[in-house]
Amino acid sequence: MRLYVGLVHYPVYNKNRELIASAITTFDLHDLARLAKTYGVKRLFVITPLEDQQDLADRVIRHWTTGFGATYNPNRKEALELIKVCSTIGDCIGEVQGIEKERPVIVSTDASVKRPEILGYSQAEAMVRADKLILLLLGTAWGLGEEVIERADYFLDPIKTDRDYNHLSVRSAAAIILDRLAGGHRGGS
Amino acid sequence: MRLYVGLVHYPVYNKNRELIASAITTFDLHDLARLAKTYGVKRLFVITPLEDQQDLADRVIRHWTTGFGATYNPNRKEALELIKVCSTIGDCIGEVQGIEKERPVIVSTDASVKRPEILGYSQAEAMVRADKLILLLLGTAWGLGEEVIERADYFLDPIKTDRDYNHLSVRSAAAIILDRLAGGHRGGS
Repeated sequence: MRLYVGLVHYPVYNKNRELIASAITTFDLHDLARLAKTYGVKRLFVITPLEDQQDLADRVIRHWTTGFGATYNPNRKEALELIKVCSTIGDCIGEVQGIEKERPVIVSTDASVKRPEILGYSQAEAMVRADKLILLLLGTAWGLGEEVIERADYFLDPIKTDRDYNHLSVRSAAAIILDRLAGGHRGGS
Repeated sequence: MRLYVGLVHYPVYNKNRELIASAITTFDLHDLARLAKTYGVKRLFVITPLEDQQDLADRVIRHWTTGFGATYNPNRKEALELIKVCSTIGDCIGEVQGIEKERPVIVSTDASVKRPEILGYSQAEAMVRADKLILLLLGTAWGLGEEVIERADYFLDPIKTDRDYNHLSVRSAAAIILDRLAGGHRGGS
């Protein structure tokens, strides 16, 4: 499996559909790192151009990987070690290319926008199983900026249920998406 | 679908496997309420005997359902309205019985403990689809107290992947479990 995940804090929309750099939420770092470790994601990128936010993420990571947290909770250490902070999506793609010597297929996500090049979950799971190099981009705040979606090779089908309410946190959406793509349980028990 | 969810703060274990009442995490309330609303869960119970913790949960719920939050973010209102605070698991079962005039099947969850009466996800999903009345109990901190697991009718199969790391947050676990039980996507695309 060669799945990488990027948590995008810029460019994303705010409530009024203006492009912003969103603040880092430390709960996201913990939940997504533990999820990434559970599902075999190779690296979790936290993407923000804001230096104070990069410092915040680095402080959290250091606390749990080399500071007091590392001995207090070694499971947390193993998870947080997967995180790498990047300034831009371009840098993040560059990091993946540096590790894998190959350009990743970029898959973007969004709760509502519809695109023609939609990737269904079975198709996405098959790509993961086939060891295709994938960078999955998750948006924070009110979703990924249009330019990210346009830059992506695929657009993952939004999570739909038979109700019309779909306002999941990025933490919940990430858990559902990783389980569907890498949980290996489809059609099983 | 007649699925109810209880987020248990007592009795749960701490890191040293002592029984405690864990603190409420406001992120849990938001994430689980939005998840419950997305997947059609009828009610989300927050179970804690501690009065200051009950007050905290009630304050958060009021802010988003009748206070400033209700007009600022109506989607959040719809979700948080599903939450009801209970002092004990017994009270929570009583609430479900009061609404449904029937005793719910109690399904407990845990990341590690193994039981003979394990419920697989296909079987659990079939029960949900068949409109069986279910109360799903989720543990906080280091997992549900033994007495909760013993009181349950079924024990849901822990979330397993082909890696041996399984330290998900209750927020991530809840998202994965609800998607598997009520996402309606198994075998589909």
